[in-house]
Amino acid sequence: MQVLPPALQSVIDALATLPGVGPRTAERYAYFLFKADPSLARRISEGLAGLHDGVAYCKKTFALIEKGKEFSDLYTDPSRNKKLVAVVAEPFDILALEKTAQFKGTYHVLGGLVSPIDGIGPEQLHIKELLERIDEDKVEEIILATNASVEGESTALYIQQQIGERNVKISRLARGLPVGVDLEYADQITLGRALEGRTLL
Amino acid sequence: MQVLPPALQSVIDALATLPGVGPRTAERYAYFLFKADPSLARRISEGLAGLHDGVAYCKKTFALIEKGKEFSDLYTDPSRNKKLVAVVAEPFDILALEKTAQFKGTYHVLGGLVSPIDGIGPEQLHIKELLERIDEDKVEEIILATNASVEGESTALYIQQQIGERNVKISRLARGLPVGVDLEYADQITLGRALEGRTLL
Repeated sequence: MQVLPPALQSVIDALATLPGVGPRTAERYAYFLFKADPSLARRISEGLAGLHDGVAYCKKTFALIEKGKEFSDLYTDPSRNKKLVAVVAEPFDILALEKTAQFKGTYHVLGGLVSPIDGIGPEQLHIKELLERIDEDKVEEIILATNASVEGESTALYIQQQIGERNVKISRLARGLPVGVDLEYADQITLGRALEGRTLL
Repeated sequence: MQVLPPALQSVIDALATLPGVGPRTAERYAYFLFKADPSLARRISEGLAGLHDGVAYCKKTFALIEKGKEFSDLYTDPSRNKKLVAVVAEPFDILALEKTAQFKGTYHVLGGLVSPIDGIGPEQLHIKELLERIDEDKVEEIILATNASVEGESTALYIQQQIGERNVKISRLARGLPVGVDLEYADQITLGRALEGRTLL
């Protein structure tokens, strides 16, 4: 006996493959789209149909760019300082840094972090290309902007070792209290880092 | 300056219209689909393209059915008892009741619940059609299987009044302790209902 129409069931099954989406959430999305104006389902459908034909990786920074272009605007734009490179794990980390409107350098996306448990070794990341960039673009400073996690820290350490004797400053994002957080609610590691990195007034 | 390629941005914007999905979650979905095998994005895309052409409402029960059919299998199948009708708010409530495998009657989907705040009055629900069914199918029992919420309770009460003098039994789902829940964690209203509805051994 058919409890759900096949056209609905196939949408539910397909949506349930998204990360963190179980059958219940997929049902909710599918029913919402069915009840909403059909233009909405069409918009998502057409967007997804064009996703892989419209998006590519920048050959230099490995940021996500429009297919057909070779490099990211965040690399080629003359206002960006190619001698200052922020190294991030994933393409969307760029978005977070761009929102600060404080960074005028360029980016380098590693494409992940070293994680032996997930079988990701440094050779799978774009570290070789970073070292080439340091030489080609005469990079003066590398900001290691990886996550404050075990994988983030060990990837940063590995890159630091690889850069080795090259004449380039290496920095990393400050660790400390997030803005608006009470001292008493900060965890001890964060607080320890905030003490270490205290600034003289 | 283009931070994200338009093909990706349009997918993110479209996915962010789903209920409970903010820009961050939409980014995560979009990036997941971009990194995954393109067949996955295609599967969701094609599913959504066919959604509105493949799904319709049953003319009798207002359950979701395959377009082209007139009635739900859960109504036409001879194994289902048309004289026993479970009244539910939304089509997916049917799924929950079917999973119990204990119900052999038919369903009637109201299409919502009375909710003055959301501007939903009883005339927007399929209550008139329910009353017609009671007469046409010589219904013997109506199970009011609406949510245990204020809207669910008041909709049930309204339907009960509308059924009025008709010779039909009206029942509702038992309220009480959910299976596996400790007494001490049950809220007082649930516990009060469980006391009221206690069964003699």
